[in-house]
Amino acid sequence: MQTTTYTVNGMTCGHCVSAVSNEVGRIPGVSDVQVDLASGSVTVTSEQSVDDAAVRAAVDEAGYQLVG
Amino acid sequence: MQTTTYTVNGMTCGHCVSAVSNEVGRIPGVSDVQVDLASGSVTVTSEQSVDDAAVRAAVDEAGYQLVG
Repeated sequence: MQTTTYTVNGMTCGHCVSAVSNEVGRIPGVSDVQVDLASGSVTVTSEQSVDDAAVRAAVDEAGYQLVG
Repeated sequence: MQTTTYTVNGMTCGHCVSAVSNEVGRIPGVSDVQVDLASGSVTVTSEQSVDDAAVRAAVDEAGYQLVG
């Protein structure tokens, strides 16, 4: 198991959290996504290393932006 | 046709707008709901007068609060 924490800009409410969780959770191999609305942190748990580009694309698809 | 404008607190993003629009739009007789996120205004168009209590309940159901 591997855990990576990203920061996402623009989430303002629980719906935003759901949108990001759902999109990132669809990435193959991802077993858990924890989002903290206040800080914008998105913690992704996966069996193997997840491609950052896939996370960035999923966040973008949800309508938000990965920081960094 | 009748148009009534309410103010709703707590909407922060497009998902919030959708949630309020969907719930208020389910009230019998309501034919259109226009939400302005920036001002919180919710304009309800209906065939006949809509009970304010029904609008309040729908907004509450969506997770927000009618002002006044």
